[in-house]
Amino acid sequence: MHYELGVVYRRIERAERAVADALAAFGSATVHEAMGRVGLMKPYMRPIYAGAQVAGTAVTVLLHPGDNWMMHVVAEQIQPGDIVVAAITAECCDGYFGDLLATSFQARGARALVIDAGVRDVKTLTEMGFPVWSKCISAKGTIKATLGSVNIPVVCAGALVHPGDVIVADDDGVVVVPRAQAAATLEAARKREAAEAAKRARLAAGELGLDMYDMRPALAQAGLRYVD
Amino acid sequence: MHYELGVVYRRIERAERAVADALAAFGSATVHEAMGRVGLMKPYMRPIYAGAQVAGTAVTVLLHPGDNWMMHVVAEQIQPGDIVVAAITAECCDGYFGDLLATSFQARGARALVIDAGVRDVKTLTEMGFPVWSKCISAKGTIKATLGSVNIPVVCAGALVHPGDVIVADDDGVVVVPRAQAAATLEAARKREAAEAAKRARLAAGELGLDMYDMRPALAQAGLRYVD
Amino acid sequence: MHYELGVVYRRIERAERAVADALAAFGSATVHEAMGRVGLMKPYMRPIYAGAQVAGTAVTVLLHPGDNWMMHVVAEQIQPGDIVVAAITAECCDGYFGDLLATSFQARGARALVIDAGVRDVKTLTEMGFPVWSKCISAKGTIKATLGSVNIPVVCAGALVHPGDVIVADDDGVVVVPRAQAAATLEAARKREAAEAAKRARLAAGELGLDMYDMRPALAQAGLRYVD
Amino acid sequence: MHYELGVVYRRIERAERAVADALAAFGSATVHEAMGRVGLMKPYMRPIYAGAQVAGTAVTVLLHPGDNWMMHVVAEQIQPGDIVVAAITAECCDGYFGDLLATSFQARGARALVIDAGVRDVKTLTEMGFPVWSKCISAKGTIKATLGSVNIPVVCAGALVHPGDVIVADDDGVVVVPRAQAAATLEAARKREAAEAAKRARLAAGELGLDMYDMRPALAQAGLRYVD
Amino acid sequence: MHYELGVVYRRIERAERAVADALAAFGSATVHEAMGRVGLMKPYMRPIYAGAQVAGTAVTVLLHPGDNWMMHVVAEQIQPGDIVVAAITAECCDGYFGDLLATSFQARGARALVIDAGVRDVKTLTEMGFPVWSKCISAKGTIKATLGSVNIPVVCAGALVHPGDVIVADDDGVVVVPRAQAAATLEAARKREAAEAAKRARLAAGELGLDMYDMRPALAQAGLRYVD
Amino acid sequence: MHYELGVVYRRIERAERAVADALAAFGSATVHEAMGRVGLMKPYMRPIYAGAQVAGTAVTVLLHPGDNWMMHVVAEQIQPGDIVVAAITAECCDGYFGDLLATSFQARGARALVIDAGVRDVKTLTEMGFPVWSKCISAKGTIKATLGSVNIPVVCAGALVHPGDVIVADDDGVVVVPRAQAAATLEAARKREAAEAAKRARLAAGELGLDMYDMRPALAQAGLRYVD
Repeated sequence: MHYELGVVYRRIERAERAVADALAAFGSATVHEAMGRVGLMKPYMRPIYAGAQVAGTAVTVLLHPGDNWMMHVVAEQIQPGDIVVAAITAECCDGYFGDLLATSFQARGARALVIDAGVRDVKTLTEMGFPVWSKCISAKGTIKATLGSVNIPVVCAGALVHPGDVIVADDDGVVVVPRAQAAATLEAARKREAAEAAKRARLAAGELGLDMYDMRPALAQAGLRYVD
Repeated sequence: MHYELGVVYRRIERAERAVADALAAFGSATVHEAMGRVGLMKPYMRPIYAGAQVAGTAVTVLLHPGDNWMMHVVAEQIQPGDIVVAAITAECCDGYFGDLLATSFQARGARALVIDAGVRDVKTLTEMGFPVWSKCISAKGTIKATLGSVNIPVVCAGALVHPGDVIVADDDGVVVVPRAQAAATLEAARKREAAEAAKRARLAAGELGLDMYDMRPALAQAGLRYVD
Repeated sequence: MHYELGVVYRRIERAERAVADALAAFGSATVHEAMGRVGLMKPYMRPIYAGAQVAGTAVTVLLHPGDNWMMHVVAEQIQPGDIVVAAITAECCDGYFGDLLATSFQARGARALVIDAGVRDVKTLTEMGFPVWSKCISAKGTIKATLGSVNIPVVCAGALVHPGDVIVADDDGVVVVPRAQAAATLEAARKREAAEAAKRARLAAGELGLDMYDMRPALAQAGLRYVD
Repeated sequence: MHYELGVVYRRIERAERAVADALAAFGSATVHEAMGRVGLMKPYMRPIYAGAQVAGTAVTVLLHPGDNWMMHVVAEQIQPGDIVVAAITAECCDGYFGDLLATSFQARGARALVIDAGVRDVKTLTEMGFPVWSKCISAKGTIKATLGSVNIPVVCAGALVHPGDVIVADDDGVVVVPRAQAAATLEAARKREAAEAAKRARLAAGELGLDMYDMRPALAQAGLRYVD
Repeated sequence: MHYELGVVYRRIERAERAVADALAAFGSATVHEAMGRVGLMKPYMRPIYAGAQVAGTAVTVLLHPGDNWMMHVVAEQIQPGDIVVAAITAECCDGYFGDLLATSFQARGARALVIDAGVRDVKTLTEMGFPVWSKCISAKGTIKATLGSVNIPVVCAGALVHPGDVIVADDDGVVVVPRAQAAATLEAARKREAAEAAKRARLAAGELGLDMYDMRPALAQAGLRYVD
Repeated sequence: MHYELGVVYRRIERAERAVADALAAFGSATVHEAMGRVGLMKPYMRPIYAGAQVAGTAVTVLLHPGDNWMMHVVAEQIQPGDIVVAAITAECCDGYFGDLLATSFQARGARALVIDAGVRDVKTLTEMGFPVWSKCISAKGTIKATLGSVNIPVVCAGALVHPGDVIVADDDGVVVVPRAQAAATLEAARKREAAEAAKRARLAAGELGLDMYDMRPALAQAGLRYVD
């Protein structure tokens, strides 16, 4: 399908809500592993405050540098449980989003914003409990002059995001789970997490990963030597 | 006027104290908008701890890389309500400022430091409640060998600062308000803020910015299309 | 001595435990000064949470990009009071270390990790109180395919670290104290700190550094002029 | 369609050869404009030598950090007129590609390499006339341990590339033209270029863009004032 | 004087043409030294091709991110011997300037462009012999929607530039000489250069700077020791 | 051995001249491979002009930010065939080295400079044929106020360099060969290069690396699948 610019795609297929909700508990690192180590946004994407951990379905918007007009357009497309993913056509650190837009997004049911640019009013956003993952923080405002698009596939911080994909974000970063893989990823994450609890207890008791994972033979075969 | 190097200009005209004080409440984003979107320092300037929001009149100092001699010179020129703005003649991340200088600055009545370089002792500075906006944090100390200047116009993090200008700084960044524009900027900021309170309530109630700002006609004229 | 790759040096000489322990209280800035302003890692090394201040003896590991196999090997070499210092043969931001390895390191008695790459599970690490100084935070995991070395001298974030050296880390950064200089550095740090307490009181009382350090004659000789 | 990892998709639909060839003459700036200002890779992608200007059809490869195994796999999929586009699952500057691979790629008919990582042997590549656009240059070699994929859609330097898309690269950067839009983009580029020749002559004769583009009324309406 | 936005100041006082012309021969390093080591733009400003060395009088323009409308406005204010200095209100790498604008600027007598953002068509600009110093190179075009200002003081790449100041640019960077200091700087540069010719000959003959500059006593006094 | 600051170590053991000379022909990539992929400086170290390829024995100098005093001290320690390696105690982009120092270094027999900071007069250095690998280019000069050291081990651009080590530098970067490994590295480089000539011919004839290196079984075992 060829996506056009200057268009708002109103009908998108969202990943199943229950699956998206369940993925939140695993966090970005486990989900990223469960997917086979793909889908992670670049590590310059940082939360504006520590401790938030969310998952939701992506509503996407493509913006131009220094222009946040389409942020108002995308607001209308938000459904409860969505996370807005904003990509920019060129690198820009301007503050595209502040407390007024956050108030609107939150009222529409958005759980978070992920934006490959800057945000502002971060003190107020923190007080509101509206988490944002962004490239930078900047008081610099934007104009409203150029059309972008809503709900087209976008590249945000190096990751491809389709509308309806699941976004999982926490202090470690932001990972994108394609809608079609969401259920399988949840299953894989659950298995991974279950296995980790037992491992954690053994490691806490002083057992070495070398033994627990039986790494010594492979290390020896690779030529590892010990010198006293 | 031509400013010389190796000179301390003792007599500067500060913006009116009441105006500077009043600007603090609005924060850098609103003040930056009120000025017409100029005067913002680059977004790499970050506070050493979250939550500080201050305004004050600029006392400026121009330093050389790795040399903080003039920080002691500028301390004498501080008056209560001032914010020290430190620029460097070349990029440098060294820690020009620590808890001893902070103790001195605070004793002289300084409200904050804005420095286009590094600071150290940030844990102690945080405990002291002395806010600093800086380019980096570094334990690296500096020497005292080369003269700079005090209270000349400086370029700090991309913004021109004259002594006596108002500095407004918070979690979103640092903005410079020229002394001659301080009163008008305060007036503009007040109007802007007053308008925002009502908007916030409407957005919180679920009204869209698209409608509240009457953006739909302009978007349609620009060619925005909706596809179901 | 020529150090080989693919080797674990099990016997290292650690700096005296009491000296390492005592250095923690002074923090990186004071220790760095006490050493003559060398040994500091680059300021991009940041703690994953604010407020941690530790010192310990270095156990080193050299890793390859995207491969954390040797982190399990180094775990076995940890003794209580050690800090693991991980260097990478090329720049990499992957998350080499998460809560499972932290559990293991903590169980072995490690006080911290210093890594010139990325870490993940930072929320859990924060809850565990296991401090890490790193170049980045990333959910991206690593493979286990290539041998590195343990307890060879490494360059980590621009600083040379020998196994057994003392590492001092806090919010200002990470400093390396060569084992042979640890005692002398501790002595110098104590002197420096003692001198600072008195200075702090004088500065807090409003005395200027200009007078306390008797800087005025040197400034005048360098040509500093005051203009009213 | 869901693309799997560890898979080589052998059958791809390439944009029409004649169209790809014809796009080379226009260069990345004109083609980018002709597409509506999308599809450009980030500007950190730079040619290893100045002056090369090429277009070709994309053969894509997804690599892991520090591992160039799949570069040998992708070589087999090259057809004359192709440009290899290499994306990495995490940021890495290692030298994935040198003169041996370049010899192989050239022998298979590749016109260029576009890689979001490092290359080496750039002196030899320059002598061979094999152009590369890359993020960095590094003598650091890579291992061959982990599978990636060939001819799946990849995100390279912020741009989404499908196998078979047209890549246009020159000193200004690298632009991706989706296969389905290649013919239309060529047509638009031709129109744009034709219009520019006449404009260039008028500007060279001293006519102002202000007049040639009839900008004065719009500027006046926007409030531009002239002060003598 | 308070400069307004959205204004073109048509009447500026240029530094004396003969002085500006004469400064070109000395290059940025010598001129920077002659000024007392101030006025240098940040070193990220690089020429689009090696070997150009120019000086001229500044005509300034303040632009918004992603918007080059004012580049057409400033073209009209160019007089032969001018160098256009373009600052942006926020960081942006877009290609604000290409071969058409260069044709116009060259026709008006401009000697160069200095821009704290991106340029494109660099192959053609190189063929035209129109030098540009810029922060980046990017095929990304810009819109024409927002007013900026012409011939107000601007901060470009960290340096304050007033219209009429002399700009000296070469492979080492870009330096700004305030109009009032141009003649004195030329005089100082001449003295410096004259002294250097003799020094160069002595150094080429094998004499050490240690002896030629008589540095040994000062080094000894500072404590330098030689160990065999 | 404990190295002191403020000291010039006059007597160093250089790698054998013939070995150092012979390594030049192989270039940094081959030498880096021959050493087992260690010893490479970070890829931000770039030559000031393309095409230079040199090897020599390291004479080291440790400098302070913005201070090039010790560059004159190190000049005296240069012997024909040496390459000066300059490290800085903190990050700095100032131009520590220009045509006068280059004239002196060249007269003393130095083959190149490798500096983890900036240089200037690059146009003249290029004309002189004196190659420099540096982090940046900057017209900014330095002062002469603080002692450093000469011929102590230094960390330069992330690599540990002992005086007397062999430095190999070309367009791909800079690699450090420890003196004790120089002969073995030369031997390994020769073997590697000999093997490559035959490979190049086979690849140029169209043979695939997949077959030449017999990679297909390993790829299949790792699970690579081909889909038509």
